[in-house]
Amino acid sequence: MNKNDKMLKEVIDLINRMKSTRPLVECLTNRVTINDCANMLLAMGASPIMAEIECEMEEIMNISSALVINLGLLDGTYLSAMKTAAEAAKRLGKPIVLDPVGAGASKLRDETCREMIELTKPDIIRGNMSEIRALTGGNISSKGVDASDDDAVNETNRLELGELVREYAEKTGSVVCATGAVDIVSDGVQVFYLKNGHEMLCDVTGTGCMCSAMTGAAAAAGEPLAAAIAAVVMMGIAGEYAYEYVKETEQGIGTFRVKLFDYIYSLSDEDYIKRGEIYN
Amino acid sequence: MNKNDKMLKEVIDLINRMKSTRPLVECLTNRVTINDCANMLLAMGASPIMAEIECEMEEIMNISSALVINLGLLDGTYLSAMKTAAEAAKRLGKPIVLDPVGAGASKLRDETCREMIELTKPDIIRGNMSEIRALTGGNISSKGVDASDDDAVNETNRLELGELVREYAEKTGSVVCATGAVDIVSDGVQVFYLKNGHEMLCDVTGTGCMCSAMTGAAAAAGEPLAAAIAAVVMMGIAGEYAYEYVKETEQGIGTFRVKLFDYIYSLSDEDYIKRGEIYN
Amino acid sequence: MNKNDKMLKEVIDLINRMKSTRPLVECLTNRVTINDCANMLLAMGASPIMAEIECEMEEIMNISSALVINLGLLDGTYLSAMKTAAEAAKRLGKPIVLDPVGAGASKLRDETCREMIELTKPDIIRGNMSEIRALTGGNISSKGVDASDDDAVNETNRLELGELVREYAEKTGSVVCATGAVDIVSDGVQVFYLKNGHEMLCDVTGTGCMCSAMTGAAAAAGEPLAAAIAAVVMMGIAGEYAYEYVKETEQGIGTFRVKLFDYIYSLSDEDYIKRGEIYN
Repeated sequence: MNKNDKMLKEVIDLINRMKSTRPLVECLTNRVTINDCANMLLAMGASPIMAEIECEMEEIMNISSALVINLGLLDGTYLSAMKTAAEAAKRLGKPIVLDPVGAGASKLRDETCREMIELTKPDIIRGNMSEIRALTGGNISSKGVDASDDDAVNETNRLELGELVREYAEKTGSVVCATGAVDIVSDGVQVFYLKNGHEMLCDVTGTGCMCSAMTGAAAAAGEPLAAAIAAVVMMGIAGEYAYEYVKETEQGIGTFRVKLFDYIYSLSDEDYIKRGEIYN
Repeated sequence: MNKNDKMLKEVIDLINRMKSTRPLVECLTNRVTINDCANMLLAMGASPIMAEIECEMEEIMNISSALVINLGLLDGTYLSAMKTAAEAAKRLGKPIVLDPVGAGASKLRDETCREMIELTKPDIIRGNMSEIRALTGGNISSKGVDASDDDAVNETNRLELGELVREYAEKTGSVVCATGAVDIVSDGVQVFYLKNGHEMLCDVTGTGCMCSAMTGAAAAAGEPLAAAIAAVVMMGIAGEYAYEYVKETEQGIGTFRVKLFDYIYSLSDEDYIKRGEIYN
Repeated sequence: MNKNDKMLKEVIDLINRMKSTRPLVECLTNRVTINDCANMLLAMGASPIMAEIECEMEEIMNISSALVINLGLLDGTYLSAMKTAAEAAKRLGKPIVLDPVGAGASKLRDETCREMIELTKPDIIRGNMSEIRALTGGNISSKGVDASDDDAVNETNRLELGELVREYAEKTGSVVCATGAVDIVSDGVQVFYLKNGHEMLCDVTGTGCMCSAMTGAAAAAGEPLAAAIAAVVMMGIAGEYAYEYVKETEQGIGTFRVKLFDYIYSLSDEDYIKRGEIYN
């Protein structure tokens, strides 16, 4: 693997563009992590809106710069609002990020995720590696909605998983971002491997959901491929700093979660240059 | 503008009365910040209850000391429970605080907020300046549900906005509290300008919602005008302390949010006397 | 009262077994504290899943190791999903923990709690002392859903309340865990009194809900009696440490809440041995 400094530069430019425009991001997201998603968008320099009534989706998408669909909550009214929001987003040319939460955990989730992906043709699909594998029809052993060891990418399976992600991106026409110990992002042609992050991120619920919300804000400021990478790199580097902080101060997961927001809030170009681990 | 020490004293008395009675506050509020509202009520010395089923509203209002209606979530079942709760609150003489979240963002929101205000005749309406402007029919440019620069009050527009808030209070018969860089509160006769706070409060989602919940607890312990001012002053001073803490310790928005709760928990008469900025 | 070191040892073994198997715990829980429950499960070494659509409950219970039913939210669709989940759990031999949130606050809550207990025959019922008293038909004065002074257990009423809890456990066939200043746990035969904890736990919303979620994870790793005690002891000791931390560092309730997660994350056998206060 070779470090890709060109993409890193593109990512930094995109993040700065995002911060200067402060995009309003409409999130139709699950109840568990909705507050974290809103606070993470504010922390990164964007603005959240979590409207969920179908009849206002047209107006909301009109004032928003991106749409994030998180399939953690699957009730019918909610799904219907998601479809209407996605139609409006498409018509208005606003990017759509879809998070297939829990794909692999039940037939309902598999089918709904596949149907929603076909229907909304998201610019970016972001999920855990096990969720992406479930969507491709691969073998998975779901341990719920949070990332698990099953998501591990190592030197042995890296190319295989990279090809799986690339094929799925080609098939769907979306940029696909599969997060895990190593994160894999592909637009169907190129494949990127991102090595930032720390395993403590798996011990906070919703770091995946937050990453999807952040991807929405990033997609409002640049191309889907760089946007997906930007969100993951931000979360990864903030995770590393948060881990180093709690290790040094001998604190735990509660403090780690607080510091994650602190670091997302303060990340600068220098941090990305010093820490960014983008390969292909 | 002149500092109003009489109102400051009234506010301090009201807060101490509130703490000594520990009022139970029923909140019908949105999903994004519901946990923060509950924790903020506990932090200030009140008790939260977030019951939402219509058929128990009569009993819940019977044991509660105030009702907070937050229009962030607009689904029909929920609105129906709000109406029933408001009827019970009126009948039982319990104060009602209404937060017109996102007024200006969609027709649905504008209409629902206006309808709910007419129907429930709240003792206090608390919103961002842009939301209050939207309700008065003024020009607004909504950037979602969190406060934005559009809310800025400066020496040039202060009297104009003060008159707008006063007129809206007169028209509705409610105390109106419009928060922003300077907060404006009016009962239709007097106009108060509150200068506490820090802009980092805008980078935490739900500080407005939390302020409305706190207003409910305050309204259980005194007149609506002083209650609205009390909640805003508490939040504002805690915001200043939290900012000073994170600046000194070189931390960020995650820590700011934690410290906000710490300071609300510990604010004393001395803090109000030293820091309170109430003018008219 | 005598210290019961045998039970303490059983509790420690159970917690270690739980950590080594990392059980997936399905929680059907209220919207106020759902994020805290998920994060607390992760902090203690378990995995959360918060699926709530009825038609996937069979599959979800199949991959889960325990079911937690929290009756804070009482809408019909939700209750229906709870019943289906409970049927599946029973059939599959997965333990059920039920939290009768707000019993005593309204007729709806009393009736729904009683009905759900009869229907689901939970392995463990965990509530505040006032909620358990309400279910037994005793006199209560509810102050909402958070624990209050009404829950106080002292040397005068300890045996009386212990007998009340024991009788209710005998009647329902469940292990009953009534939390308060002193926590009482009974399987209908033995009665245990747990003295860990700190009153600041009452100033964070959802410590009861979190404790119920933790009880679910514990029940996946051992007998209901030891599991109920294990969860309460973990929360109690973490609460003591968190209090000592904020007292020493002169911080408040926001920091206390963060440290609660930190300590749950790091509790070790030594902590239980040094601090555990299990009596009967």
